[in-house]
Amino acid sequence: MVLDRLKQVAQHVTGTTPPPHPFDPLSAAEIEKAVALVNKEHGPLFYNAVTIWEPRKAEMLAWLADPDHTIRPHRVADVVAIKKGGMVYDGLVDLDEDKLLKWESNEGVQPLITMEDLQIVEHIVREDPKVIEQCVISGIPKEDMHKVYCDPWTIGFDARFGNKVRLQQALMYYRPHIDDSQYSKPLDFTPIFNCDTQEIIHIDIPPVRRPVNQAPPNNYHPAAIEAEGGYRKDLKPINITQPEGVSFKVDDRIIEWQNWKVHVGFNYREGIVLNNITYNDKGKERGIFYRLSLAEMVVPYGNPEHPHQRKHAFDLGEYGGGYMTNSLALGCDCKGAIHYMDANFVNRAGASQTIKNAICVHEEDAGILFKHTDFRDDSVIVTRGRKLLISHVFTAANYEYCVYWIFHQDGTVQLEIKLTGILNTYAMNPGEDTRGWGTEVYPGVNAHNHQHLFCMRVDPNIDGPENTVFQVDAKAGPGEVGSAENKYGNAFYAHKTKYSTAKESMSDYDGSSSRTWEMANTNKINPYSHKPVSYKLVSREVPALLPKEGGLVWKRAGFARHAVHVTKYQDDQIHPAGRHVPQTSGEPSQGLPEWIAKHGDESIDNTDIVLWHTFGITHFPSPEDYPVMPAEPMTLLLRPRNFFLKNPALDVPPSYASTPSQIAAKKAAVSNVDKASRAV
Amino acid sequence: MVLDRLKQVAQHVTGTTPPPHPFDPLSAAEIEKAVALVNKEHGPLFYNAVTIWEPRKAEMLAWLADPDHTIRPHRVADVVAIKKGGMVYDGLVDLDEDKLLKWESNEGVQPLITMEDLQIVEHIVREDPKVIEQCVISGIPKEDMHKVYCDPWTIGFDARFGNKVRLQQALMYYRPHIDDSQYSKPLDFTPIFNCDTQEIIHIDIPPVRRPVNQAPPNNYHPAAIEAEGGYRKDLKPINITQPEGVSFKVDDRIIEWQNWKVHVGFNYREGIVLNNITYNDKGKERGIFYRLSLAEMVVPYGNPEHPHQRKHAFDLGEYGGGYMTNSLALGCDCKGAIHYMDANFVNRAGASQTIKNAICVHEEDAGILFKHTDFRDDSVIVTRGRKLLISHVFTAANYEYCVYWIFHQDGTVQLEIKLTGILNTYAMNPGEDTRGWGTEVYPGVNAHNHQHLFCMRVDPNIDGPENTVFQVDAKAGPGEVGSAENKYGNAFYAHKTKYSTAKESMSDYDGSSSRTWEMANTNKINPYSHKPVSYKLVSREVPALLPKEGGLVWKRAGFARHAVHVTKYQDDQIHPAGRHVPQTSGEPSQGLPEWIAKHGDESIDNTDIVLWHTFGITHFPSPEDYPVMPAEPMTLLLRPRNFFLKNPALDVPPSYASTPSQIAAKKAAVSNVDKASRAV
Ligand SMILES: [Co+2]
Ligand SMILES: [Co+2]
Repeated sequence: MVLDRLKQVAQHVTGTTPPPHPFDPLSAAEIEKAVALVNKEHGPLFYNAVTIWEPRKAEMLAWLADPDHTIRPHRVADVVAIKKGGMVYDGLVDLDEDKLLKWESNEGVQPLITMEDLQIVEHIVREDPKVIEQCVISGIPKEDMHKVYCDPWTIGFDARFGNKVRLQQALMYYRPHIDDSQYSKPLDFTPIFNCDTQEIIHIDIPPVRRPVNQAPPNNYHPAAIEAEGGYRKDLKPINITQPEGVSFKVDDRIIEWQNWKVHVGFNYREGIVLNNITYNDKGKERGIFYRLSLAEMVVPYGNPEHPHQRKHAFDLGEYGGGYMTNSLALGCDCKGAIHYMDANFVNRAGASQTIKNAICVHEEDAGILFKHTDFRDDSVIVTRGRKLLISHVFTAANYEYCVYWIFHQDGTVQLEIKLTGILNTYAMNPGEDTRGWGTEVYPGVNAHNHQHLFCMRVDPNIDGPENTVFQVDAKAGPGEVGSAENKYGNAFYAHKTKYSTAKESMSDYDGSSSRTWEMANTNKINPYSHKPVSYKLVSREVPALLPKEGGLVWKRAGFARHAVHVTKYQDDQIHPAGRHVPQTSGEPSQGLPEWIAKHGDESIDNTDIVLWHTFGITHFPSPEDYPVMPAEPMTLLLRPRNFFLKNPALDVPPSYASTPSQIAAKKAAVSNVDKASRAV
Repeated sequence: MVLDRLKQVAQHVTGTTPPPHPFDPLSAAEIEKAVALVNKEHGPLFYNAVTIWEPRKAEMLAWLADPDHTIRPHRVADVVAIKKGGMVYDGLVDLDEDKLLKWESNEGVQPLITMEDLQIVEHIVREDPKVIEQCVISGIPKEDMHKVYCDPWTIGFDARFGNKVRLQQALMYYRPHIDDSQYSKPLDFTPIFNCDTQEIIHIDIPPVRRPVNQAPPNNYHPAAIEAEGGYRKDLKPINITQPEGVSFKVDDRIIEWQNWKVHVGFNYREGIVLNNITYNDKGKERGIFYRLSLAEMVVPYGNPEHPHQRKHAFDLGEYGGGYMTNSLALGCDCKGAIHYMDANFVNRAGASQTIKNAICVHEEDAGILFKHTDFRDDSVIVTRGRKLLISHVFTAANYEYCVYWIFHQDGTVQLEIKLTGILNTYAMNPGEDTRGWGTEVYPGVNAHNHQHLFCMRVDPNIDGPENTVFQVDAKAGPGEVGSAENKYGNAFYAHKTKYSTAKESMSDYDGSSSRTWEMANTNKINPYSHKPVSYKLVSREVPALLPKEGGLVWKRAGFARHAVHVTKYQDDQIHPAGRHVPQTSGEPSQGLPEWIAKHGDESIDNTDIVLWHTFGITHFPSPEDYPVMPAEPMTLLLRPRNFFLKNPALDVPPSYASTPSQIAAKKAAVSNVDKASRAV
């Protein structure tokens, strides 16, 4: 990017490197500095995470308001590490002062399972005699153990093993050929792996055995497609180009585009974090969101037979949406003119490692932004829209999640998530009944029912941090048909309910009232509508949590019990299922339920608040989802309501505009018609 | 298109014109032939509509199955005409045999209001002394009557006037300057216009008067934007090109694309009609939908004060989504490589007229179609998707509706509707309270609450016309937490309810159970899942009809009382609010309620059925929607479930694919990386 290069030149000339923005993720150098400081006092350790400890909000708001006269928030590393033997340490390292601010041991706590933690398990299971024995029972010769694979998952929580010992469960598969999709050959038993001792401590074996599937492999790789008749040949290229460059400016991690300004952060848990989102409203930079992220998710599976209840992955809290992020490929994942950003993490040994092209930033045409034709004379305005997408894709074992944060010219922020990848599968015998808990998506392959429930954390800053949330329900007006006040029965209105406390705010979606939620600043009234400035959450894919109250998932995934929770802002409340999620029992529930139990009666009216929104889909698999699933999209919108004085995109140049006087005078209209389009 | 040209050449050589496809709209020549035949016997007449009378389904299915040995369905024109004095005639003209099959007079029935009908009113109101008197009362000098405008609407239904006389209500506005948006200067009174005598018969005057708004004009035309600082200058072009041509084939009105085949019809009421939608599943052409269209809509406004209850436009049934269709402009409405189709209609005088470029057909990139990475070795497949859009845009006075029928490679059909244009507005006095029935979107401008409720008509043909509809609700399994059958409480499943009769099928959306509806062929079972082949309706924007039971809108818009109705197929049941909608009282309700009252106990199980789906949004205006509204999208999906044996898009060439064996051998992967993309 031009700005980047100018800055590099400037730094080259002056010989200085500007300090990172306080919201920036830790650089490779910062990660290694933090590790060195910790190692010196407490090493050796297995590093689980070294990430930015985001500046405390009060300090940060002061600095943002006046960076030249305010102390710059220090760079602080948030460290999680494990000692041989299993003790977990949480630490904070001030990188500006080269000192440890905190170093605490935590018993009975298990930080997330890293990619390195996962990778080890497969090697161990292949050599474990008891696992080999089970493979033989399943019909796999013991010479074929190199064809046995496993997707290691955290154990979730299993009361038999508790949380003192760090465990993984190995979901087992067989690949007759190295390139075969293992998901068509699931094995029926589940070894339990001790991460510390690196051994198999138990195997869960079902009462009914299901030998390995004898159906032919079901593959999607090119050789398989060629063998079935080959690829379709009737797709002609679509080229998307920006010969004059992109319309966004990049200043390190701050992206400016169409009046929007946003700092793009990234961490190992949430993946993309968007900070300090502002909109330049005719010269005035107005705050909208202090922070936006996907903070947690849970994928409960609906088969009640043991040990499937353990399948309820918290993909962010138990594995890390950042850690699992794909390195994106130009012209494959991303099309058009693409700006990439890398991500740096720590590895187990304490070195920094980089995922190149972790974040994709690009513009897309968005079709008609607005249009109106006067039917009298066909005078018309038609203006095309644009959107800016900031995205990443992460692979959670079998599934992939494509996350798109989308900015629109009309002030809307959209979150779109596409689910793709492969269904988690389990073995079934010929003629076996799924009992409704799953679908036989291929002979011998049972894909269990499941939900994908995401928790978006919204820290609103609607013209300042003092905000209030209203529930908005569309409601018929009072008065029966025939009454003076509602003679024709057509009265309806937006019924608004203010949430005064976190306890009051615990609310579900109501499709029948088209329920939305407004994050408002009641101190600032729109002079036209006389209503508070606000952003409205419009989210329609909001299934109820199907696992029952009091059950394992309900206890562990407290955030998913309701569509919306609102809490008073607290610096350390980022993770709604807790800081360390694996092997939590849910007794008591961590995260949101814990915070609300403590502070649920405090006022959330006209103060600094956070809105937690759980949304997603319930997925009943079908053969169309297999052997690799076409992307299933879901989306939600954050829309300005009474925030602007008028449509903020009126000054986007129209493709074509003519007025009645121009039509009458047969005068030229304003035309910026796209010249690259062709009629065919 | 190449095929078109080849056919033209062939016709030039042989000197023959092939007959139109039986689903084709009437050509200009056919319209004029029908008019000539009617005029000879019954003229002179004002023509309201001359449109294709679609072939009876039994006859058409026989012909489609074996066109060479079956009698080709005749071309029949469906004619609506009005005689001076107001008598309405419904006729059918067999164009193959040059004869009238039917000619019936209908008293107390009012066919829709055409654009020509609308255009007349403004000229009349400007010269009517009583209207001039009201304008003067509103503060408009009588010399300025040329600055007075009206949006004529059907009267809806007003018991004072009944349905014997054809009426329009004139929503009044003022434009200080010819280029000013009138919607910021609404007038407070409503003249009633007699279409037959072309005179104002009444004026509705509110008890509280609201003189014309004194706020400055609020415009969006280029001069206004220039005066406010001009257009933004930071948008660089995005070019979308298909240098090797498009991937779809056009044979007259049949489009073939990515295994899909669809006949694209168009009529004055519904606009786009898609017929005989099939999917070529590995060489076998499988039926999916016999017919898809938007069949009706209603836009009830929520202000109970007289005469606003009359604002509940049936834009399709009262005006015609086809008649109001925009002529689309390349590089403005449409971007990329575009195939256009024209639309022919009759005019009042009986001549044919053409809307050029009424329908836009084009392809778009659709992002990631599917992706999976093996976390062990980063072997990966990433395949980009494509979609085909068949769209039109219509202008309903102040509003525009952009309708996109979208075909996906994974077998999904999507309907997306974007709302844009201008809010309907009413006058308000300074300091007046909207009482919650609207929003002051600009000083003196009250935009009333309203709903946009669309009725999609789905005539499924899921592997044949014998289909059955199931309601599908996500439901927790039986057994309390701790019980043997549901120890951990995590059991959940898809609860399916078969609709046996139309009365049983009347159902609402349930967001809490993520309700969907499956159109299934229970005679054909997916060999893998053992479930019937089906298409699932996934629709999440399904507000309840807010006008109350027994009220005017509830009575007239029977289709909107429920999200889904299923009826046994009948050839003449196309219009769910009735064939002629204006001035229906709703006593009894026309269309769906009438059909269900008659046939609601007949079996709809495993027979030829139609599913009617009402969806949309409830719109509480805000200043951001004004003076012209950024497009608000809504969408629904029709998804294959248990229809295919596997993901039907597996043979879409991947952008990149590597297998574990290739990774291990460091061998070349399959790469079709998009070459036009650039990193910036
Ligand atoms: Co899923
Ligand atoms: Co609206």
